[in-house]
Amino acid sequence: MEPAIKVTVRRDTRSVPVGPTGIGGEFPITVQSMTTEYTYEIDKTVKQINDLADAGCELVRVTVPTPKDTAALKEILAQSPIPVIADVHFQYKRALAAIEAGVPKIRLNPGNINDRKQVEEVIAACKANGVAIRVGVNEGSIVERKDLNLRAHEKEENLLKLMMEKLDEYINIFHDNNFDNLVLAAKCTDAARCIILNRMISQEYNYPLHLGVTHSGTVETGAIRSAAAIGTLLAEGIGDTVRISLAGDPVKEVETAWEILNSLYLRPRTKPELIACPTCGRVEVDLFEMVDEVKAAVAEIDYPVKIAVMGCIVNGPGEAEGSDVGISAGKSKVMIYRDGQVVETVPTEQGVECMLKHVKEFIADDKARKAKEESELVEAN
Amino acid sequence: MEPAIKVTVRRDTRSVPVGPTGIGGEFPITVQSMTTEYTYEIDKTVKQINDLADAGCELVRVTVPTPKDTAALKEILAQSPIPVIADVHFQYKRALAAIEAGVPKIRLNPGNINDRKQVEEVIAACKANGVAIRVGVNEGSIVERKDLNLRAHEKEENLLKLMMEKLDEYINIFHDNNFDNLVLAAKCTDAARCIILNRMISQEYNYPLHLGVTHSGTVETGAIRSAAAIGTLLAEGIGDTVRISLAGDPVKEVETAWEILNSLYLRPRTKPELIACPTCGRVEVDLFEMVDEVKAAVAEIDYPVKIAVMGCIVNGPGEAEGSDVGISAGKSKVMIYRDGQVVETVPTEQGVECMLKHVKEFIADDKARKAKEESELVEAN
Repeated sequence: MEPAIKVTVRRDTRSVPVGPTGIGGEFPITVQSMTTEYTYEIDKTVKQINDLADAGCELVRVTVPTPKDTAALKEILAQSPIPVIADVHFQYKRALAAIEAGVPKIRLNPGNINDRKQVEEVIAACKANGVAIRVGVNEGSIVERKDLNLRAHEKEENLLKLMMEKLDEYINIFHDNNFDNLVLAAKCTDAARCIILNRMISQEYNYPLHLGVTHSGTVETGAIRSAAAIGTLLAEGIGDTVRISLAGDPVKEVETAWEILNSLYLRPRTKPELIACPTCGRVEVDLFEMVDEVKAAVAEIDYPVKIAVMGCIVNGPGEAEGSDVGISAGKSKVMIYRDGQVVETVPTEQGVECMLKHVKEFIADDKARKAKEESELVEAN
Repeated sequence: MEPAIKVTVRRDTRSVPVGPTGIGGEFPITVQSMTTEYTYEIDKTVKQINDLADAGCELVRVTVPTPKDTAALKEILAQSPIPVIADVHFQYKRALAAIEAGVPKIRLNPGNINDRKQVEEVIAACKANGVAIRVGVNEGSIVERKDLNLRAHEKEENLLKLMMEKLDEYINIFHDNNFDNLVLAAKCTDAARCIILNRMISQEYNYPLHLGVTHSGTVETGAIRSAAAIGTLLAEGIGDTVRISLAGDPVKEVETAWEILNSLYLRPRTKPELIACPTCGRVEVDLFEMVDEVKAAVAEIDYPVKIAVMGCIVNGPGEAEGSDVGISAGKSKVMIYRDGQVVETVPTEQGVECMLKHVKEFIADDKARKAKEESELVEAN
């Protein structure tokens, strides 16, 4: 279904299958993340993959630095509810072992595999097995910048050019081997470079793009920086799969990615959306507490319902009206809204409970309405 | 100084003075926030303004719902290190009292002042005193949407049109009164609508734009959603002042705004920038702990230095090289980088301390270098 709001027209790219899903083309913009457990610790890795999948992760990458790790892949693949991508560095044999184990995609950095023949062997194995490859450059892989003999911030001007040249060089290896099951990535540590570089790549190639701001700091600043960079690119129609890199629990990466995609209407919401008031001198109730209470209470609901928690008379009633279910709180009593109408006024201490009742009713009604519409549609045909 | 990286060309707008600073035109994109204390509690309000200013807030808004609040303004203005904006709703007399007290700017929503004559009286007072006005629409102020008789998500299509019409209607009042010291704002609760609406406004008017996503949820989702919306607009050259609305400590609003502006190279950094590794199975040290330690240690430094904290051998060395000072950590020892060169290798437990020593040396060297360059420039002239 087309969203009501369209912020952009997504760039047309090649479609790259990854197991039962894929990246680019007609596939939706996918959310991916990466495990932080040692891959060879199968139970821990599978547990983390399940947690990530529960949070909405659609593709998961695991690191495979040692033979123990690739040996674990077969079992992990059997247990994982989502496609597993092998992250390969330095050792082309890890790539071959991962492909043998059945991964639908690998991440390969030709820059850290010294022998081109080895890269070509990996490409041949991917081709034979229908395995996709994400190839890309990170700021960190541009060793040439050492030779620039400039201070860090002066290097930046040259860095973009070097990264683009490096990516071109990598892609040529794949072209020479008639391999086009490619996803491209170019990751920087800041939003501006990330935006400029991905704009450049999207002009030059029609392979799908994996977006990410690499090493993007602490959870807080990393999320903000990633949202600014990735949000901007997505709103320009650029980007086909998203990974938010945070130095923290990867579940946060998935939540952040979804918040960006949902907020830009690029993927429909499947969970409640909570709108809260920015508190100011106008607030008469402990709004933070109320927000936390509502947040906890609706955490398990798997249905897109827009819930407003408002603490003031200026914007409160209006915003509450714009939501599916709203609560506009005064000092002693609260008004509960549904579909833009006040449906109940109760004492403040009963507010959250009353609101939740209406959320549940709203969902039941909405499901019934949709079912009815569908059955009418079937009859009409 | 022009930044090394230019993500956009900022839209040309009218310049609106606000005390010693201003919005639009040649003024940099400013960071603003809003106090949450009762304005009439002068000491608490001034303390919060000082905290906000320390965090980098350049304009601060206070709410003035009662005569007690406007009566406090003169003293607050005398003590505040940054321009104070009065947030007026419902009562035009509060606007008149705030102007009388000397505020350089008010926020006015003509939609909640019923009598047009009262709005015109406020405009006349602003004109006589060189006071700027921010006028805008919030989703919540579009009462007409009640009449649409549609479900919440179906209303969205119509909401943008209604908001634009409402803004046009407001602006006409100011035009009729020959007042153009205006800043415009249109706030929605989600990124997509915010982006589309501000694109529309920037096409139609050349008044500077105040960007914000209103009521943007909890601190976490709010920051992400705001960064996606405001980052996108800024990267398109749209936006002259930024307020991040978060249901939390407003200092976080200021930090979030700066992270967006810095990361897009729209304002230069004045504080250390921390780059951390997204942990994965490759990490051999407790990186979170190290990041927290570094973060705390550099919190007081008022100098832009790019610090990388890396925990792996894949991206670690490369990223550390791209920073001013970097630490690339292995199991038992760490490498310290400065200006792209390894300068020291020490046991892991001494890593952070050693890195900090180099941060301080880097800053001293950098300051000396800049001073030398300046004195040479003076001599050359």
